[in-house]
Amino acid sequence: MPESPHYLDHAATAPIRRCAVDAWADTARLLNPGGQYASGRLARAALEEAREQIAAALGCEPVEVIFTGSGTESCNIAVQGLWRAGGRGRIISTPIEHPAVAETVTALAAAGAEIDLLPVGADGVTLPGPVLDARASLVTCMWANNETGAIQPVAGICTRAAAAGTPVHVDATQVVGHLPVDFAALGATTLAAGAHKFGGPRGVGLLIAKRSPAPTPVLFGGGQERGIRPGTANVAGAVATAAALTEAVAEIPGSTPRITDLRDRLQAGILDRVDDVLVHGADAHRLPGHLHLSFPGAEGDSLIMLLDNAGIACSTGSACSAGVNRASDVLLAMGVSEHDARGAVRFTLGPTTTDADVDRVLEVITDVVSRARIAGMA
Amino acid sequence: MPESPHYLDHAATAPIRRCAVDAWADTARLLNPGGQYASGRLARAALEEAREQIAAALGCEPVEVIFTGSGTESCNIAVQGLWRAGGRGRIISTPIEHPAVAETVTALAAAGAEIDLLPVGADGVTLPGPVLDARASLVTCMWANNETGAIQPVAGICTRAAAAGTPVHVDATQVVGHLPVDFAALGATTLAAGAHKFGGPRGVGLLIAKRSPAPTPVLFGGGQERGIRPGTANVAGAVATAAALTEAVAEIPGSTPRITDLRDRLQAGILDRVDDVLVHGADAHRLPGHLHLSFPGAEGDSLIMLLDNAGIACSTGSACSAGVNRASDVLLAMGVSEHDARGAVRFTLGPTTTDADVDRVLEVITDVVSRARIAGMA
Repeated sequence: MPESPHYLDHAATAPIRRCAVDAWADTARLLNPGGQYASGRLARAALEEAREQIAAALGCEPVEVIFTGSGTESCNIAVQGLWRAGGRGRIISTPIEHPAVAETVTALAAAGAEIDLLPVGADGVTLPGPVLDARASLVTCMWANNETGAIQPVAGICTRAAAAGTPVHVDATQVVGHLPVDFAALGATTLAAGAHKFGGPRGVGLLIAKRSPAPTPVLFGGGQERGIRPGTANVAGAVATAAALTEAVAEIPGSTPRITDLRDRLQAGILDRVDDVLVHGADAHRLPGHLHLSFPGAEGDSLIMLLDNAGIACSTGSACSAGVNRASDVLLAMGVSEHDARGAVRFTLGPTTTDADVDRVLEVITDVVSRARIAGMA
Repeated sequence: MPESPHYLDHAATAPIRRCAVDAWADTARLLNPGGQYASGRLARAALEEAREQIAAALGCEPVEVIFTGSGTESCNIAVQGLWRAGGRGRIISTPIEHPAVAETVTALAAAGAEIDLLPVGADGVTLPGPVLDARASLVTCMWANNETGAIQPVAGICTRAAAAGTPVHVDATQVVGHLPVDFAALGATTLAAGAHKFGGPRGVGLLIAKRSPAPTPVLFGGGQERGIRPGTANVAGAVATAAALTEAVAEIPGSTPRITDLRDRLQAGILDRVDDVLVHGADAHRLPGHLHLSFPGAEGDSLIMLLDNAGIACSTGSACSAGVNRASDVLLAMGVSEHDARGAVRFTLGPTTTDADVDRVLEVITDVVSRARIAGMA
C-alpha cells in the first residue's frame, strides 16, 4: 500500500521526528526504573533526564511533569480527577472541546456534575463569561481548537478562575511544540499534550500538573508518577518525547513564519480558485498550520476521498476516530449552519510541509470541489 | 552508569526483544490509522495485522483484542468497567492480586462495592469458595502471582462463575508469553497483559475482551478500540507487541524446560548453601522462571543492595513502584509471618538467563545472606 505523497493532516498526527525514532531505539533496552539495582538506576536516570528536558521546554518544574499514555488520558485524569478532588461540583467548559474533554465532561454530567459552557463567537474563540467569577470544581478550556486552530484566551481564563479559586485544566494538545508554552506564567493547574502531535511517538501523553491541587487518580495500581498515573514507566517513550519536544520548541521561531506563509498561500489560492468558500476562524488568531474551510453544497467525505485520489491527505477535522460522518459540533457552536458544516475540510500543515504540497492542492481543488458539489446534489 | 550484568528481575520487565525494536523502528513513521486516505489505510492495515497476530497467539478473535497503554490500564478498564456495567454490585477477588487490581478493588470498595476475597492456601494458591456460586458483578483473579509465580485455578473459577452468571477478569500479566493461553477455551470475560512482560515495548497493554458483556469505559474520547479505550492508536507499539508475542509464544515449548531447570538449580543451590530458607509457593505449580524466597532475619532491601553490589538484579517482588519497604501482602495472605516476609527476595528468570547468572548468585549468596542477617540484628 502507498503513502499519501502530500500529507496535510499534521494536526491528526505529525510525522515522527528522526531524533525521536533514534532516541527510542537507543533506549528501548533500558529496564524498569523502579528496580533497586544498577540497570534500574540507569533507566531511572534516563527517565528523569527526559522529565527535566520536558520541564525546560514547557516552563514547569520536573516534578510537575507526569507521563501518561496519551493526550486523551492526560485530559481524562485532569478533568475527572480535578472534579473528584474538587468536591464533585460545577464544571465550566466550552462547546468546542476535543472529545477527550467533551466526552469526559458528558460522562461526569451523567454522574451528577453541573455543567456551564462558556459562549463561543463566530470566529471560534471562547468568550470568558461571568460564570467564571463564582468558584467551581474546575474550568477546562483548550488552548487552540483542533479543527479551526483558533487560539483561545486561556491566560485570561486562568487569571479570572484563579480569582474565584477555581482550578483550570488547559488542553494544549494542538499547541505544545507549535507555540511557546510557559506553564508557570500561564497559571493553569494542569495542562495536557500528546507526543505524536509534535513528532514524538504514539502512546505517550504529558500531563503537567501543579503540586496542588492534584487530580484524584483515574487508574489505580503502583504509586508511579506522584501516584497520579500508575504503570511501569515507558522510559524509551519518555526519552523520545523529550527529544521531539526539544527539537520542536527550538524550531518554533524559524518554522512559524514559514508554515504561516504556506498556509496563507494555500488559503488565498483556494479563495482565488473556488467560489463560495467559508474559512472557519479566519478572524481569530490561529495556529500557523491550520486551515479549516467549508465548501457549501459538497460533503466533507466526498472532498476527502477526491483529494485522497489526488495524493493529498487531509480530514474533515471533526472525527479523530474516523468513520463518523456528521456535522462538526465545533462549527455548529460557532453558528455555522449544518449544511455548510457538512462541507468542511481541514488542511493542517507542519514542519515537513513544502511548496509542492500547497501547489498540488491548488492544482486540483477547483475540479475536486466541483465534482463534490455535483455529488452533493445527487 | 553500568547495566546489571546478571539480570534476574524478568517479572518486573523483560529485556525487549530485538524483533520488537526492529518492528517498532520499521513502523514508527506510519501515520494515524483514523485517516481516510492512503497513509491512514497503510497505518490501519498494520494495526489490524498486529491485532490478528495477537489474536492468533492468544486464541481469541481479532475483534476481542483491545490495545491499551499498559497492563495496569487493562486491569483498571476490566475491573472498573465490568463493575459499572454489571450494576455496581459485589466483587469477588483474592488477597494476592497485583496493585493494578488490588488498588482498583479498594477504590471501588470506597465507592460502595461489596468485596468478597477468596481464601489463599499456604502454597499461594487461591481456593475457589462458595462465594462464587451466587451472582456478582465480577470475579477478578490473576492467572499467576507476580511474586511467587504460583499458578491460580482460573479455569475452574471461570467455570464456576459462568454457572452463576458472573463475568470474570483474569490478570494474565505474568502468564502471556510465558505459558500457553487460549482465551476462548478459558471462558473468561476479559484478560489483561502488558507487552513489556514478554519482551514487547513499554507503554502497550492488551485487554482481551469478549464482545459481551463489555466493560464501561474508564477513559472518554474518540471511539477507538470498540469504544472501550480512546486515543490515537499506537501503531508501532501494537506491531512491536505482536512481533514480541509471536516470538515468545513460539519459544514456550523450548524455553520452558530450560528456564525451569535453571530455576530449579538456583533453588537447590541456595537451599544447599544457606540455612533457614523459605521457598514461597514451593508446593504450587509455579511459573518456570519464578523463585521467591525468604531469608528470615535479613531485610529484603539489604539483600537486594548486597546482590546489586555483586552485579545481580532482583527485587523483593512486592514493590513494582519501588522505594516501598514493607512486608508483602501476598506473603502475609499465605500465612507467612511479618518477620519472615520482610526477608523476601524474588529472582525471576527468562529467555536470556544463562548458567552464568545462576552461578553468580550461588557464588555470593552465602556471604550476602550472612551479611544481611548481621545487619538485620543491628
